[in-house]
Amino acid sequence: MIAIIVHGGAGKANSKEEIPGRIETCKYAAKTGFDILKSGGSAIDAAVEAVKIFEDDPFFNAGRGAYLNKKGEVELDSGIMDGESLKSGAASGIKHIKNPILLAKIIMEKSPHRFLISEGAEEFAMENQLEIVPNSYFITKEKREIYLKKLNKTQESDTVGAVALDEKGHIASAVSTGGTPFKEKGRVGDSPIIGSGFFANNTYGAVATGIGEDIMKAVLSFRINLYINEGIEYAVQQTIDDLTKLNGKAGIIALDKRGNIAYKYNTEMMFYGFMKEGMKEPEGGI
Amino acid sequence: MIAIIVHGGAGKANSKEEIPGRIETCKYAAKTGFDILKSGGSAIDAAVEAVKIFEDDPFFNAGRGAYLNKKGEVELDSGIMDGESLKSGAASGIKHIKNPILLAKIIMEKSPHRFLISEGAEEFAMENQLEIVPNSYFITKEKREIYLKKLNKTQESDTVGAVALDEKGHIASAVSTGGTPFKEKGRVGDSPIIGSGFFANNTYGAVATGIGEDIMKAVLSFRINLYINEGIEYAVQQTIDDLTKLNGKAGIIALDKRGNIAYKYNTEMMFYGFMKEGMKEPEGGI
Repeated sequence: MIAIIVHGGAGKANSKEEIPGRIETCKYAAKTGFDILKSGGSAIDAAVEAVKIFEDDPFFNAGRGAYLNKKGEVELDSGIMDGESLKSGAASGIKHIKNPILLAKIIMEKSPHRFLISEGAEEFAMENQLEIVPNSYFITKEKREIYLKKLNKTQESDTVGAVALDEKGHIASAVSTGGTPFKEKGRVGDSPIIGSGFFANNTYGAVATGIGEDIMKAVLSFRINLYINEGIEYAVQQTIDDLTKLNGKAGIIALDKRGNIAYKYNTEMMFYGFMKEGMKEPEGGI
Repeated sequence: MIAIIVHGGAGKANSKEEIPGRIETCKYAAKTGFDILKSGGSAIDAAVEAVKIFEDDPFFNAGRGAYLNKKGEVELDSGIMDGESLKSGAASGIKHIKNPILLAKIIMEKSPHRFLISEGAEEFAMENQLEIVPNSYFITKEKREIYLKKLNKTQESDTVGAVALDEKGHIASAVSTGGTPFKEKGRVGDSPIIGSGFFANNTYGAVATGIGEDIMKAVLSFRINLYINEGIEYAVQQTIDDLTKLNGKAGIIALDKRGNIAYKYNTEMMFYGFMKEGMKEPEGGI
């Protein structure tokens, strides 16, 4: 069984007009990852390529199109985990690396460490020949306007993520974000935090999105472990129910080793897309 | 019931001669925290004051006396969690704040965010009047010699931490570290990572120490939740056993809402100290 599920953020849409296009991008990202899996590619590669599509798309809050922080700069975070080896990679405070998910991947693969931040992370990216861009590359007209209104709409963090299962039965989770609009400089949300923003092991993989500060107090992606014996669908619902009790807002996408897919949220909406063996086309929705 | 447990790092001692003195400091830190609890102080204040003792002591790898990174600088991390509110605070990449644990506390109390890094974290510290020191303040002769030998003894990270239970039944966890010797610039270990380096809720509190990269893949401090129904002693042992199966090395200190204390490790040793209601003197050991 091969399968992939992606999301393009939970919260509210900035405008109704953009909903259909964003769902299409979710479907496209799922299809792209699925094709990699179908041709024998790894869950890691499928999840990374799906996230990269969102990072390159200016309508999502990851890579180009990220929200600006309080100082008017973009600071990006990313994380990845290989459920087979339990190795992970994460980066935070990234200002000049075009695709932060590639940095997370290279930290996982080549660094003795699992999480690098700020200058140290960017130096590691440069040593590994990742593409460098000026901070202005990430800043779109739309997100600059949101910045100028000084909006701190913490309900709309719009992180992106992907979880994939490959034909070897390996699961990988990947996540990328620009964080919350008008965040304090140096703010790290849940996305690059193992256990909170992402987790993967031999049994399941998950990625969270929503209010990072809420997700962290619930250790949301790892929390699924508390309920996983009852199945992924139940476990994800129970995890979101726990979060609701804690007055938190978020969404989760997840899949298990049999390719069962789950997506739950207590926000107004969550953009998602998925595709698994037996499906002719990806499905997507909010 | 009031109780506190502290640790001064897991791994190996740099020399046998320093063991008795370090155990004494653990006992002193436990006693200091206990006295705060006894006079009606909060678990947060007790845990913070205990950690602050280690930060100010040049023989522990937190605050003054921290290991140098590959660039010859000290970069400090800290984390704290209030088990009552589930609010947390964490900081990473700190170079100029005398007591990083105070920064974690002020992030928890005053920031809308839960985790701040590098310059943004230090600006927040300055806005809140925390004491600023040059990076050289943290660098002792002993740790500079270790740096000059280019030792990357990842087995000896010697993080410090404390978990306290106050008379209201609130539990708090606090942690502070200089990370691993000769670490890459920007490396973040488990310490400031909620769920990995620390966790606290209404039922228990825990702090981990050891190889950060191993602790993170096991999400060690939150992992206790998987077994907590069987009691804190069993849960902590089971969590360390899980880590052993993952080829990880670490120690954990923990306590539960009844004041039961647990400390387990699969490293050669772990410096610890604790004191609870009914004890006339703190106990300590390795």
